[in-house]
Amino acid sequence: MRPSERANNQVRPITITRQFTAHAEGSVLVEFGNTKVICTASVEENVPRWLKGKGQGWVTAEYGMLPRATHSRNRREAASGKQGGRTMEIQRLIARSLRAAVDLKALGEQMITVDCDVIQADGGTRTASITGAMVALVDAINYMLANGMLKASPLKQMVAAVSVGIYNGEAVCDLDYAEDSAAETDMNVVMTEAGKMIEIQGTAEGEAFSHEELLSMLALAKDGIADIISVQKRALEN
Amino acid sequence: MRPSERANNQVRPITITRQFTAHAEGSVLVEFGNTKVICTASVEENVPRWLKGKGQGWVTAEYGMLPRATHSRNRREAASGKQGGRTMEIQRLIARSLRAAVDLKALGEQMITVDCDVIQADGGTRTASITGAMVALVDAINYMLANGMLKASPLKQMVAAVSVGIYNGEAVCDLDYAEDSAAETDMNVVMTEAGKMIEIQGTAEGEAFSHEELLSMLALAKDGIADIISVQKRALEN
Amino acid sequence: MRPSERANNQVRPITITRQFTAHAEGSVLVEFGNTKVICTASVEENVPRWLKGKGQGWVTAEYGMLPRATHSRNRREAASGKQGGRTMEIQRLIARSLRAAVDLKALGEQMITVDCDVIQADGGTRTASITGAMVALVDAINYMLANGMLKASPLKQMVAAVSVGIYNGEAVCDLDYAEDSAAETDMNVVMTEAGKMIEIQGTAEGEAFSHEELLSMLALAKDGIADIISVQKRALEN
Amino acid sequence: MRPSERANNQVRPITITRQFTAHAEGSVLVEFGNTKVICTASVEENVPRWLKGKGQGWVTAEYGMLPRATHSRNRREAASGKQGGRTMEIQRLIARSLRAAVDLKALGEQMITVDCDVIQADGGTRTASITGAMVALVDAINYMLANGMLKASPLKQMVAAVSVGIYNGEAVCDLDYAEDSAAETDMNVVMTEAGKMIEIQGTAEGEAFSHEELLSMLALAKDGIADIISVQKRALEN
Amino acid sequence: MRPSERANNQVRPITITRQFTAHAEGSVLVEFGNTKVICTASVEENVPRWLKGKGQGWVTAEYGMLPRATHSRNRREAASGKQGGRTMEIQRLIARSLRAAVDLKALGEQMITVDCDVIQADGGTRTASITGAMVALVDAINYMLANGMLKASPLKQMVAAVSVGIYNGEAVCDLDYAEDSAAETDMNVVMTEAGKMIEIQGTAEGEAFSHEELLSMLALAKDGIADIISVQKRALEN
Amino acid sequence: MRPSERANNQVRPITITRQFTAHAEGSVLVEFGNTKVICTASVEENVPRWLKGKGQGWVTAEYGMLPRATHSRNRREAASGKQGGRTMEIQRLIARSLRAAVDLKALGEQMITVDCDVIQADGGTRTASITGAMVALVDAINYMLANGMLKASPLKQMVAAVSVGIYNGEAVCDLDYAEDSAAETDMNVVMTEAGKMIEIQGTAEGEAFSHEELLSMLALAKDGIADIISVQKRALEN
Repeated sequence: MRPSERANNQVRPITITRQFTAHAEGSVLVEFGNTKVICTASVEENVPRWLKGKGQGWVTAEYGMLPRATHSRNRREAASGKQGGRTMEIQRLIARSLRAAVDLKALGEQMITVDCDVIQADGGTRTASITGAMVALVDAINYMLANGMLKASPLKQMVAAVSVGIYNGEAVCDLDYAEDSAAETDMNVVMTEAGKMIEIQGTAEGEAFSHEELLSMLALAKDGIADIISVQKRALEN
Repeated sequence: MRPSERANNQVRPITITRQFTAHAEGSVLVEFGNTKVICTASVEENVPRWLKGKGQGWVTAEYGMLPRATHSRNRREAASGKQGGRTMEIQRLIARSLRAAVDLKALGEQMITVDCDVIQADGGTRTASITGAMVALVDAINYMLANGMLKASPLKQMVAAVSVGIYNGEAVCDLDYAEDSAAETDMNVVMTEAGKMIEIQGTAEGEAFSHEELLSMLALAKDGIADIISVQKRALEN
Repeated sequence: MRPSERANNQVRPITITRQFTAHAEGSVLVEFGNTKVICTASVEENVPRWLKGKGQGWVTAEYGMLPRATHSRNRREAASGKQGGRTMEIQRLIARSLRAAVDLKALGEQMITVDCDVIQADGGTRTASITGAMVALVDAINYMLANGMLKASPLKQMVAAVSVGIYNGEAVCDLDYAEDSAAETDMNVVMTEAGKMIEIQGTAEGEAFSHEELLSMLALAKDGIADIISVQKRALEN
Repeated sequence: MRPSERANNQVRPITITRQFTAHAEGSVLVEFGNTKVICTASVEENVPRWLKGKGQGWVTAEYGMLPRATHSRNRREAASGKQGGRTMEIQRLIARSLRAAVDLKALGEQMITVDCDVIQADGGTRTASITGAMVALVDAINYMLANGMLKASPLKQMVAAVSVGIYNGEAVCDLDYAEDSAAETDMNVVMTEAGKMIEIQGTAEGEAFSHEELLSMLALAKDGIADIISVQKRALEN
Repeated sequence: MRPSERANNQVRPITITRQFTAHAEGSVLVEFGNTKVICTASVEENVPRWLKGKGQGWVTAEYGMLPRATHSRNRREAASGKQGGRTMEIQRLIARSLRAAVDLKALGEQMITVDCDVIQADGGTRTASITGAMVALVDAINYMLANGMLKASPLKQMVAAVSVGIYNGEAVCDLDYAEDSAAETDMNVVMTEAGKMIEIQGTAEGEAFSHEELLSMLALAKDGIADIISVQKRALEN
Repeated sequence: MRPSERANNQVRPITITRQFTAHAEGSVLVEFGNTKVICTASVEENVPRWLKGKGQGWVTAEYGMLPRATHSRNRREAASGKQGGRTMEIQRLIARSLRAAVDLKALGEQMITVDCDVIQADGGTRTASITGAMVALVDAINYMLANGMLKASPLKQMVAAVSVGIYNGEAVCDLDYAEDSAAETDMNVVMTEAGKMIEIQGTAEGEAFSHEELLSMLALAKDGIADIISVQKRALEN
């Protein structure tokens, strides 16, 4: 039995609130149960220096956690003078996932930066971030279309993410903190709406995992992501 | 006429939501109109090294802004590797203000850190932060009393803050961004519930200001802060 | 009775030595009693990147203390890899004060940087810095006029600063370290030669201060600054 | 046809040279074709502060590249003042992989740090690093056993890694730089000698990948790692 | 002919002012012509962590330049976030030179830190720093003797320094900036009062130098340092 | 008797392996006995910003040590966030030495960066680095000639380096770690093939050294460097 009493294949209640803050071209509050992340997409008519003149755009992401998003307070990264390895790893993952959703050539020499800031953490902050960032990205693209910064949409496909893992010997979907901190294996999966994979990152925290366990986790991930993409699409329809 | 059509002595609608996030001992969302700040108070049974063995506690604060809390995106301080001068200045001001509310000896060798993170900025983020942080601090103290970490409350008095300024030649209270960016003078005032001053920081952005203008601004600040302290107290009663 | 046996409204002996070092366009040693600060103004035919092409100049300031300017040695900021919050706060205050003295449009696309380095500290280093920096700034402007870098002076007014406070229950002017470390309230005031205010920054170190105390301090500040501006003007006449 | 003319399931010639440098308790040069990494394991009778008194040891890893290990020179991370995101990501992966090989309780309060420094890069530096680091780790454990720092071996199992990917539409094993820079998908797999998984990290560089492609890559990885573990074991027998 | 019209073996007028600032245990203004350095020695009843319990003391040094000590303004090292290579090199040289003057065992577990801050630079700042720092060090030792922190003096010998070089094909002593920036070779020599060498650091700026040129420079250095040590001793007698 | 049983004037076996790694325009493994350094020279059609438009090129150098090149592990400089003073001092020495070998005007607006990375340290890493870097530099220049980046060679002369010192009261050449850590005096000498001096850096670690001791050390250095330059030339002939 999972601590949350969910079925093994059941994701937490997922809520996506658009236009959560006022200034960003896309601004989303995404909630996976008690995990809450603010995702804002910022548009710039500019690209990083190393891309100038190459006729393509760029999508990037940054990730942070408020110091007390977690059970005990973490040191503020701005105060300690650098982003930790975990932060770097996560923001690189978010950015790669979002770039898979966009045709960078069609974006032209423009850049979209998505900031994912966790205000409350209960496991799965990186998969919630990708899921919410995707919606903020769509809103930013719609802003660009509405304001003449783009003639046609560079959006290729929707992308979403979920974590799966082996908890108490069984494959489960969308782990919360209670499960995550006790899981033998933890895997993050990013998929397209067509069910193809963008990223998988699986780690044996305790015991190594077998091929069969991997397959069970992937099956859960596929269904979970399909559910999550429905939530994204409903949110975008409103 | 003020851009917001408020009377000169009128503060914006102020909302204080307690228990805004789950983990912190005190967690508040404070809104001064469109300025929104999450204030969390974290308790530690410990003091900074330089205070060890001195028989007193410590209250400190840190301040940050989400990169897209503002009209255009600011570089993330964690990524640039340091907190800017403005951030440092503000978090020192918040910390001094909160320490004026607490008897540090009565706190014992324990520490409360209040994090103020601006999720949406529309002027007055530092005065909103102080105001919200005060409520989070009270909640943290109540947590300590309830959990036997304190026998008696070290709280001396409520503290709140407001900005005042000279806008279009007239003294106005609680400037929003439209006023703040055009004001000739901008002053932040921190006061106790008894109407005494903890901090005043006034800056002539354009023309130097006269003694009379200072007096007009102080009068507005006093009334505004009295209003704000009522809001704090109502929030704490719920 | 004050530790220095000065009357409550009496500033310390103030000395301003121009051309204190050889290379800077303006170079001043300012002494407020035992507080000694070297202020050098450096001229550059250039502005920061964010000002380029805007048809105006810039005045900025940096502040530092020699590690053993104080009673016990402070860690060298260059060695610790960053400027502390107090340093940042002070140099921002100095810079804003100096900009109030200059018409930045009339300066053209040129920049003046004033460095204030405390070689001996005995309270009031920031107000001594502003006072000395003002004189170094005038010398730099005169250098620019003499060398054809300016056709007309962009100087709008003289600016000077003094600290006031509540010590032993009484308002006093120009606190030395013995008073400063024991004062209930400490306030820095920056004024123009016309007696108008540029900056006031008051902090209750112990007890909150009343409106009446504020008025007493302001009255002392006004007279003190008038005295200090006379010293500046005499120094510039030599 | 692969640029190297290897069969799709063929790893590059792999060489492991032990005792490559003189001072470290384990020191290995690992070569996967033209990718060359020095892996040294350093033993310390000590654990990080957060582990003190918990009755267990620690295994960690750091990764670096000589500035000209690559086609064009990269900026030296020591000179730029921080490790980049890619470096952080890789050294975290190596460390987790090595910890899966060791019973940390059986290690006692002792620490082994493995440094992986790439002297020549031709694709697959992270998988070569894990493979070589594993052998250096065994040598360090043997040193500890021989010197009475350990009574029994804490080694649980051998661990090795390989990269697989989709190149020209086909799954291939152990990509070199020519393939890596053109691959549609790149996946790093870390496995135990029993064929169970420690880590999988797959990224769609271009097109998203299907479930079938994932299965093909995993099959290649399993066989490749079995080959590599044979090389490790032969090296350790000498 | 030298730009300063000095004879080749003639040092600049050298002035050593003791008790230059109020707080340090030793405080010296040293002037070699127009090069002016404040040297303060700070005493601590403590040693760096790596020396604790080893029954010996430590002497160290730090070096800095005010941003406008030079012809054009240099960026403040505290603001740029690190000490440059030149600064590091110089402060290590000063520290090694001073340690040669002191019996560290006889100092006991106490530390003396000498800060050398250049307020005006005209060539030879490192040799002026060593020369002035030596006098500040003696004053600090005398303070420790007078205050019971030492029973017997740990001073072994006086140490001083001078620069020599090849300018216009001739060996010259104590180069000022005009010579230094045009010299073919520049050498810094640190010697004891007995005429033995502590440090020599010679650099061919343009042409390589011959053995004969080295001998000529060393002869000048020996005489120059003897003169300088007389100045140190006279200063200490006052 | 020296620990290595070498004669006082005998350098260690010196080996220079060219084309040690694949990508750099010059790549050398230099071995002075057990001291091993990888030196790579990288060519860039570009100069640092401060040299642009001045019609000359630049040669620079960076130095590092693998963390476990030494007896006990040193903290990785990239991880600690800065290069230490010793590293800075050494890389500046290497760079100045190499610039003495090249006519920078003849190089045109192009830059050569030589990286010296110590993989195993046994004393004399800086002199081995200079010696190996010189050969890598020649290979890089030959690459530029062969590829039309240079019409004529800007090479002025060969440069090499050796350490000498006073060990057990006698002058010895090319100290290994056993000698270096016990030597009274340690001196690094850089010379041209014509026997003239580029750099001498001598430090009394224990006792100050006499003029006679200096002369003995210089005589050994001259002969040692002549031997080393022969090794360089033989290596370049192959």
